[in-house]
Amino acid sequence: MASPRDFNGRDILSILDFDREQLEYIMDVADDIEQHMDRYRGILTGKTMAILFFEPSTRTRLSFEAAMKKLGGLTLDMGEPVRASVEKGETLTDTVRVVQSYADLIVLRHPMEGAARLAAEVADIPVINGGSGAEEHPTQAMLDLYTIRRCKKHIDGLNIGILGDLRYGRTTHSLAYALSNYDVKLYLISPELLRMRREVLRHISSRVKVYELDKLDEVLPELDVLYVTRIQKERFADESEYMRVKGSYKVTLETVSRMKKDAVIMHPLPRVDEIAVEVDSTPNAIYFRQVYYGLLTRMSIISLILGALPAK
Amino acid sequence: MASPRDFNGRDILSILDFDREQLEYIMDVADDIEQHMDRYRGILTGKTMAILFFEPSTRTRLSFEAAMKKLGGLTLDMGEPVRASVEKGETLTDTVRVVQSYADLIVLRHPMEGAARLAAEVADIPVINGGSGAEEHPTQAMLDLYTIRRCKKHIDGLNIGILGDLRYGRTTHSLAYALSNYDVKLYLISPELLRMRREVLRHISSRVKVYELDKLDEVLPELDVLYVTRIQKERFADESEYMRVKGSYKVTLETVSRMKKDAVIMHPLPRVDEIAVEVDSTPNAIYFRQVYYGLLTRMSIISLILGALPAK
Amino acid sequence: MASPRDFNGRDILSILDFDREQLEYIMDVADDIEQHMDRYRGILTGKTMAILFFEPSTRTRLSFEAAMKKLGGLTLDMGEPVRASVEKGETLTDTVRVVQSYADLIVLRHPMEGAARLAAEVADIPVINGGSGAEEHPTQAMLDLYTIRRCKKHIDGLNIGILGDLRYGRTTHSLAYALSNYDVKLYLISPELLRMRREVLRHISSRVKVYELDKLDEVLPELDVLYVTRIQKERFADESEYMRVKGSYKVTLETVSRMKKDAVIMHPLPRVDEIAVEVDSTPNAIYFRQVYYGLLTRMSIISLILGALPAK
Repeated sequence: MASPRDFNGRDILSILDFDREQLEYIMDVADDIEQHMDRYRGILTGKTMAILFFEPSTRTRLSFEAAMKKLGGLTLDMGEPVRASVEKGETLTDTVRVVQSYADLIVLRHPMEGAARLAAEVADIPVINGGSGAEEHPTQAMLDLYTIRRCKKHIDGLNIGILGDLRYGRTTHSLAYALSNYDVKLYLISPELLRMRREVLRHISSRVKVYELDKLDEVLPELDVLYVTRIQKERFADESEYMRVKGSYKVTLETVSRMKKDAVIMHPLPRVDEIAVEVDSTPNAIYFRQVYYGLLTRMSIISLILGALPAK
Repeated sequence: MASPRDFNGRDILSILDFDREQLEYIMDVADDIEQHMDRYRGILTGKTMAILFFEPSTRTRLSFEAAMKKLGGLTLDMGEPVRASVEKGETLTDTVRVVQSYADLIVLRHPMEGAARLAAEVADIPVINGGSGAEEHPTQAMLDLYTIRRCKKHIDGLNIGILGDLRYGRTTHSLAYALSNYDVKLYLISPELLRMRREVLRHISSRVKVYELDKLDEVLPELDVLYVTRIQKERFADESEYMRVKGSYKVTLETVSRMKKDAVIMHPLPRVDEIAVEVDSTPNAIYFRQVYYGLLTRMSIISLILGALPAK
Repeated sequence: MASPRDFNGRDILSILDFDREQLEYIMDVADDIEQHMDRYRGILTGKTMAILFFEPSTRTRLSFEAAMKKLGGLTLDMGEPVRASVEKGETLTDTVRVVQSYADLIVLRHPMEGAARLAAEVADIPVINGGSGAEEHPTQAMLDLYTIRRCKKHIDGLNIGILGDLRYGRTTHSLAYALSNYDVKLYLISPELLRMRREVLRHISSRVKVYELDKLDEVLPELDVLYVTRIQKERFADESEYMRVKGSYKVTLETVSRMKKDAVIMHPLPRVDEIAVEVDSTPNAIYFRQVYYGLLTRMSIISLILGALPAK
């Protein structure tokens, strides 16, 4: 069984560092926070989170900031993307060493793979990887799991489709790893060019049933969860190829009509046009609720890492 | 009589949505906040304001931020102007739907007319229009009214001049609407090119006496309040025309000397050179106090909307 | 003897405005804050600091923000560098007059010498100079003093070397002034081109023993403290001259090996390559601890200025 001791003072670098019991524990605490918000409100009084984002990101930054503040903690934001010091030529490790004088916890986003691990080695305080390179985004995977558990009641037994850019989308990598802790079938749906990275595929294939497809249509009626991600034009040398692919992956009301009645559609957001706005008002669309579940998940993670759960 | 129930959960989109009693009620609460700050300090604990500014604005943003924080609430700022998500192509309605997961209240500034109304339709939480297009800036009008009430003790019976860009200056539109709830004479003083918008004129003319002028001189001795706004060079095709107009509307010590002894001079700020700095030290200059009254007014508005007045 | 009355409501413009007793008092309060943090945590509840930075500066901005928030106060940041209003042509004095409606204290950084003094003349609330022009950075000098006192137990009797750009580095000017209150020997080590400003030299020479050198080597074994600053390429007309100078001032493990065993190395940060990273892990390197002592120093300064020390 997982316990608070598994988390106190711990870095959150990769979803692979967490086993199923620990993931479930984070979700249990998220449930508890929603149900007993009053108990949690001031729990991080006197604690400070430093936000070090070397890439633009309104969404993730805001989610961490809201989570920290709603628990009574302080946030210090280095600016986005981290500016002055870095312009003066300072290294990441120096920036981390400075910031930890002010904070109890660092959330780092960085375009370079391995940046979060490097920061964690230097820092005396816990580091949360808020997204690094094309590699990992562990807290996004945790909130995705939690959203599924909230909306489907359980994760085991589900057929889950992940659609879009599985090669460069760090969200999809972390989610695939996370889901491989459960008894699920994974359908990886992407154009040839954007197939799931081989090292991820190897890992998850050894644990769950995985199917790679390049068409959404055939598997649509089987899915309990469809996780949509954006396909970026820049990935394609040929614009006509991009247009073709994009069109065939767009989720519309017609797509929804061919899904199970209680299937859910997720998206890490921001969405551009890969999901038609008409879909928003269907009961299947849960991508905006996902944002709220993300807030609860990050409140849970921060409380656990800072060893600040309320007395029962 | 207005009561807190008129405001709880309400959007602030247009000054036209408020009648005289409601405007007076907001001002009464502003008075109460100043007199009993200690009762209000923690009243918004656990409440969160999202600041979504799609246009640069230090002044209005800071005023709302200060108002919320001084009442014990949290603020979450999407950055200014709203960055990352929008760069990635997200629509305003999606941004609003995301942000409301974190907040109890949204303050929105947007270059597009109607943006605030659109946001309010999408959002499940109250939206305050912090300025949209060239159209409306309702909380500015409320703080302008309050400043007049504070400095002149009453509004009825006053002769009020509004000077400058009455065509594009959203501040002047909202203020004219607001004043038309009172028994005042309005002098609209502007160059031909920058006359008050016809739809605004039509509305206010049906309620109060309105005079349009292109010279400040003739009406100066009558005025109790002179509200100065900036005339932007970009509005003129011809620079010499701009220079002529600008010069004739500049407020100087000589201007003040021809006003009533107890007349007051207001400005929404920032001021460039439309009021000479020598005027700042006259007792007639109240434009810096206006900032402070704005803080009180916004504290009142936020408390009322969030249904958080202290018990008497 | 200094007392809280020496500080309540006071501006912090120049280190020259403070005598030795007052500097020691600020350091005593910094000690007290570290030892009794719980007594200080909420001491600035209801107080607001406006941060007006007209130059980029992550480090100083963050240090003030952290200091204020950790004492329970609010911060309002005009953005960095101060944006919207100034783009619209507002003067510094108008910006100060607006901001003081929201705040109890202003921290200002500005590229222009004398800007902080100008702001202090206009403002009704205390102003802290967070760095102005190439002239002064008084709180940096206070934290440098405090770091020396913490690491060496006393300041009198020390041999202190200041290395690098003594002409344009405002940090070195304020530090030299501050140290001239103590019985120290000052070694000013710089290339000819970047010698200490004559007016600073004149002042400090009348109070302490000062030696100007252009080589670090000869004095190295004597030093108790070596304060390193960066030499910027832009200061040199000739790149080869820059490379030569830079190389001869770089602090490496070899440098450390020729210093006293208990000598300490300081740096205002950010560091680029004027101190080799290998030095970081020696016990002599205290530049990251300096950041933490800076936090305590600024907490002390703010508490004193706002007259908010806890009851004993």
